[in-house]
Amino acid sequence: DPNLKVFTLNSNPALAEEIAKHIGIHLGKSSVSMFSDGEIQINIEESIRGCDVYVIQSTSNPVNKHLMELLIMIDALKRASARTINVVLPYYGYARQDRKARSREPITAKLVANLLETAGATRVIAIDLHAPQIQGFFDIPVDQLLGVPILSDYFKSKKLEDIVVVSPDHGGVTRARKMADRLKAPIAIIDKRRPRPNVAEVMNIVGNIQGKTAILIDDIIDTAGTITLAANALIENGAKSVYACCTHPVLSGPAIERISGSSIKELVVTNTIPLPKEKQIDKVTSLSVAPLLGEAIIRVHEKLSVSKLFD
Amino acid sequence: DPNLKVFTLNSNPALAEEIAKHIGIHLGKSSVSMFSDGEIQINIEESIRGCDVYVIQSTSNPVNKHLMELLIMIDALKRASARTINVVLPYYGYARQDRKARSREPITAKLVANLLETAGATRVIAIDLHAPQIQGFFDIPVDQLLGVPILSDYFKSKKLEDIVVVSPDHGGVTRARKMADRLKAPIAIIDKRRPRPNVAEVMNIVGNIQGKTAILIDDIIDTAGTITLAANALIENGAKSVYACCTHPVLSGPAIERISGSSIKELVVTNTIPLPKEKQIDKVTSLSVAPLLGEAIIRVHEKLSVSKLFD
Ligand SMILES: Nc1ncnc2c1ncn2[C@@H]1O[C@H](COP(=O)(O)O)[C@@H](O)[C@H]1O
Ligand SMILES: Nc1ncnc2c1ncn2[C@@H]1O[C@H](COP(=O)(O)O)[C@@H](O)[C@H]1O
Repeated sequence: DPNLKVFTLNSNPALAEEIAKHIGIHLGKSSVSMFSDGEIQINIEESIRGCDVYVIQSTSNPVNKHLMELLIMIDALKRASARTINVVLPYYGYARQDRKARSREPITAKLVANLLETAGATRVIAIDLHAPQIQGFFDIPVDQLLGVPILSDYFKSKKLEDIVVVSPDHGGVTRARKMADRLKAPIAIIDKRRPRPNVAEVMNIVGNIQGKTAILIDDIIDTAGTITLAANALIENGAKSVYACCTHPVLSGPAIERISGSSIKELVVTNTIPLPKEKQIDKVTSLSVAPLLGEAIIRVHEKLSVSKLFD
Repeated sequence: DPNLKVFTLNSNPALAEEIAKHIGIHLGKSSVSMFSDGEIQINIEESIRGCDVYVIQSTSNPVNKHLMELLIMIDALKRASARTINVVLPYYGYARQDRKARSREPITAKLVANLLETAGATRVIAIDLHAPQIQGFFDIPVDQLLGVPILSDYFKSKKLEDIVVVSPDHGGVTRARKMADRLKAPIAIIDKRRPRPNVAEVMNIVGNIQGKTAILIDDIIDTAGTITLAANALIENGAKSVYACCTHPVLSGPAIERISGSSIKELVVTNTIPLPKEKQIDKVTSLSVAPLLGEAIIRVHEKLSVSKLFD
């Protein structure tokens, strides 16, 4: 369909290339560069008048630059008479600022939703939105895809035995439950407690992990403090070995060092955020979300529900 | 007035401090920092409920970070029940992307206006908005202040003789006219022409500069190509000496090197954009806009017109 156009920006060009290949089209021609003073310059180099345009961009680090690239691209597409502007956000930055944890804090995840709509986005396709409430921050349709099927299929293919799926905190139990169902395994939960203020947290484990192969699952691994402490606690409490996985490998600051030095045997992630060379260590396996996003784009373009992608 | 609060972000803390001193208050307490993954974290550390808040921030380089700091701060102020949120933008980044110069380009200056309003800004106070049309990009009140009086007063105090004020292009003639009126001097215009495609531009000078002290004036000096070529053309055509001035010293890329090596005797700028150490060369004089902005804030807060600041 000549009315279906896919454009990439600077966060995930390789992923976008792979998505286009999956769909069977070429990426749209555009240039995204910088003026001498750091301002972003975008030019769309082919007509998109009346087209359904899909823009692939994660608002990963550098988040402010990637977000502005996206907003400016949306503005340019709108002014060039795109029929629909579908924003494909493999990783939605600022998602953790989704509520006022203290007084007088911003809710930046909501601000970003408003900015995308103001620029002219007509639909959002995202993967694992940290909190499902973020869908409600938008007044346009939001398709949320899940990383769990991709991660689960990988672990299935490894044919591990006597598995237990472990959530590193109470917030992640639903996600762990989903993976456990797919792997026909039980779950366990790390129950962090601080007995008194200014005393180290105690890692209680709820559920049976004795002699089992544990798979820790989270949506985002950022500095990897939580996940590596959890892995070590699992081993100390009798797990045979520990795998970890997440959809979004933010891996900032000491993350790689911590993972290297932890009892995690393998960390499985997806390419919603590309891993630069220095983060591509042996322990880390990256799976592609390109088939998932490609399929989602095809289904959205054909006006079909994307929920069948979760079966 | 305890209802008047001034906050700074990270672009111009020294200017904000000076503005607060001019008004006779302390800057509001807030912290603007970064999470490990590069996301901006803002917390307002005093109540601003029911207050008229003025936020000082230039969207200078790094423009995307400075803009996001501003948008997130506005979001936080709005959620903390500020009565009005007055955005003081000494320098408005992306102002040069104010029209579609080619097909399928964004109009980022308009996008930025929409983003500021969406975040919750209720008024904008700016200095020398590149194009006066940018005021019309907003649906909220915009007070535009001018750099010309500050720059002119400085040159007046130097008691130069036989001055001619020169606009480096046709777009800047109105600004040059304003300065010339204040200095009781004639004007001249650099009339760039490209005789044939792919042939160097010819610098024609319209007006009499013979034996005179020329003062070149522009709103923005970025890579300093235009201004240094103009200065050299003025000397070649018989000017006695050349001064240059602008409101916004972007000074990116080769700017400082070009200015050092040019026939410009002194470059006079303002602190709408702070000059980092490596740009503070002997030839460059920086004047403060703090009294102007302080006065403007007082007048806006007292519901008075700011136009008297141009007298
Ligand atoms: N980029 C970030 N890096 C680290 N922490 C963050 C970030 N953004 C928000 N937070 C904090 O993370 C908490 C939310 O995380 P969660 O409890 O996992 O939903 C809040 O207390 C936020 O202040
Ligand atoms: N940050 C920037 N640096 C250099 N040129 C720019 C920048 N933003 C916009 N422009 C270009 O500058 C021109 C507008 O400048 P002007 O003619 O002075 O209004 C347009 O052709 C823009 O493409």
